[in-house]
Amino acid sequence: MKEPDKQNIEEAAKRIAPYVHRTPVLTSQSLNEMFQAELYFKCENFQKTGVFKSRGACNAVFSLTEEQIRKGVATHSSGNHAAALARAAKLRNTQAYVVMPENSSKVKIEAVKAYGGRITFCKPTLEARETTLKEVIAETGAAEIHPYDNYRIIEGQATATKELVEQQPGLDYIICPVGGGGLLSGTLLAAHYFSSGTKVIAAEPEQANDAFLSFKTKSFVPSVNPDTIADGLRTSLGELTFPIIMDHVHDIMTVSENDIVESMKLIWKRLKIMVETSSAVTLAVIKNNAGLFKNKKTGIILSGGNVDLNQLPW
Amino acid sequence: MKEPDKQNIEEAAKRIAPYVHRTPVLTSQSLNEMFQAELYFKCENFQKTGVFKSRGACNAVFSLTEEQIRKGVATHSSGNHAAALARAAKLRNTQAYVVMPENSSKVKIEAVKAYGGRITFCKPTLEARETTLKEVIAETGAAEIHPYDNYRIIEGQATATKELVEQQPGLDYIICPVGGGGLLSGTLLAAHYFSSGTKVIAAEPEQANDAFLSFKTKSFVPSVNPDTIADGLRTSLGELTFPIIMDHVHDIMTVSENDIVESMKLIWKRLKIMVETSSAVTLAVIKNNAGLFKNKKTGIILSGGNVDLNQLPW
Repeated sequence: MKEPDKQNIEEAAKRIAPYVHRTPVLTSQSLNEMFQAELYFKCENFQKTGVFKSRGACNAVFSLTEEQIRKGVATHSSGNHAAALARAAKLRNTQAYVVMPENSSKVKIEAVKAYGGRITFCKPTLEARETTLKEVIAETGAAEIHPYDNYRIIEGQATATKELVEQQPGLDYIICPVGGGGLLSGTLLAAHYFSSGTKVIAAEPEQANDAFLSFKTKSFVPSVNPDTIADGLRTSLGELTFPIIMDHVHDIMTVSENDIVESMKLIWKRLKIMVETSSAVTLAVIKNNAGLFKNKKTGIILSGGNVDLNQLPW
Repeated sequence: MKEPDKQNIEEAAKRIAPYVHRTPVLTSQSLNEMFQAELYFKCENFQKTGVFKSRGACNAVFSLTEEQIRKGVATHSSGNHAAALARAAKLRNTQAYVVMPENSSKVKIEAVKAYGGRITFCKPTLEARETTLKEVIAETGAAEIHPYDNYRIIEGQATATKELVEQQPGLDYIICPVGGGGLLSGTLLAAHYFSSGTKVIAAEPEQANDAFLSFKTKSFVPSVNPDTIADGLRTSLGELTFPIIMDHVHDIMTVSENDIVESMKLIWKRLKIMVETSSAVTLAVIKNNAGLFKNKKTGIILSGGNVDLNQLPW
């Protein structure tokens, strides 16, 4: 399979349009004044299932043939991708099988169940997840949909930035969180094809800085036991996402745990919206590099809003 | 002065348009499914200063003549009206003098200061507030702008519902919180003039049920030491708001403290937005009276989103 091109992303946008929201872009005068910048927040926290993952999951599920989808779809995921895939499978009248680590949050487990996903629990290690998924697939014949290392997923995530640059043309920068790199790869390709003058900067927790190290050393560095509250950003880059990132990203910047919490609160307070920790790394990059973004137009991908209100990080 | 008519509200909408947001109306498929209803959330939490109060404050301040405004404006308020008035005064290049009880929240005090309001602190009793305000006015010559018992304020608040019924015509019900009755009076008049088939139901905390008692007994009952977490809804109705409410409200329903907290969490979780306790009484009415709203189109006024994230009520 080849890397997604412009037409692939346009087709993905059409394919998923009936199933996902065209999310709004919000601005805040007080944040703009605070940073002397023009900030445009792409609100994927308002997306179906509360996160951009619905885009990729719908694109992947609806790209499969009837024959391919007949026995269902399967993945391993501790959270957002699992719920998005379960919802997409339900929309296509097929079954989602999800391998989840036994320490997954109750809220996320319930979301998967609510969409009719069938869960197999496993030990919370990557090895256990992969082994268990293989067993589930051998048993069911379901088609595997990897959470990010899958071009159909990447095309789907790309549609968020395709929309953003239509809603707000002329952006100097886009800041995007990076975990496994599905959202970032999509963002990079969409900016490349639909807004070529826009530089994309990735934001990553210092305590899960595998993408930063991979980018700086120009060689794949895995994420080993990352310990960050940004739970969506703990994964390693993938075989498909790493090359796209190396080809297109302008820079990768890391932020501290404290930066993440402070930026999360700032977004909640000023925009009056709920975003999750993984989204807040973006504004933290602005905070730490105010000079770079001064008087510039910057798009900020707020990736999701699935927060356990009983376990806030402050 | 006479009660606001249709033209007054239309003029208010034009007058304040440069200074306030036309706030969005949000929907949630999951809440609609949960209540088997069509719910339309008018998001005044996204309003300037984070609350509908900016509408009334701007209308009142910009309705005054140059001569009237020359020596500033004054009010007593523990919070949202104070910040909204300070902002409106700043926009009109005049001074706001605000009497605030000394136990006002730090966040709200800082907001008033940020907009350049001059604060005089007083004991946290209505008597002290009124006496201190008289002294401030005697000293400064400022024009008093009451937080709700003022027709210009009521007209301003009315513009939220004028917008809502333009954005979503054909509503069966609108649910609106009631404290002093400024927002509710405006909502009632706007529904009356711009969507006469829509019934307006007021939502009030059980533990501050003066409007409920006033409505049921058809005589003014003051709010005495109300103890509710919905801090915007503790005030008594006013001389101007009470008659408008008696004339136009369809019903007033009360909700428990627990209902308020649960509904607040539900709004946050499902809509991914932040609203304050005073806004959450509305959805609590839906929760407690699901039969009434089943298969109906109901507008819900989410009055504001100023929340102290370090003091959440759960």
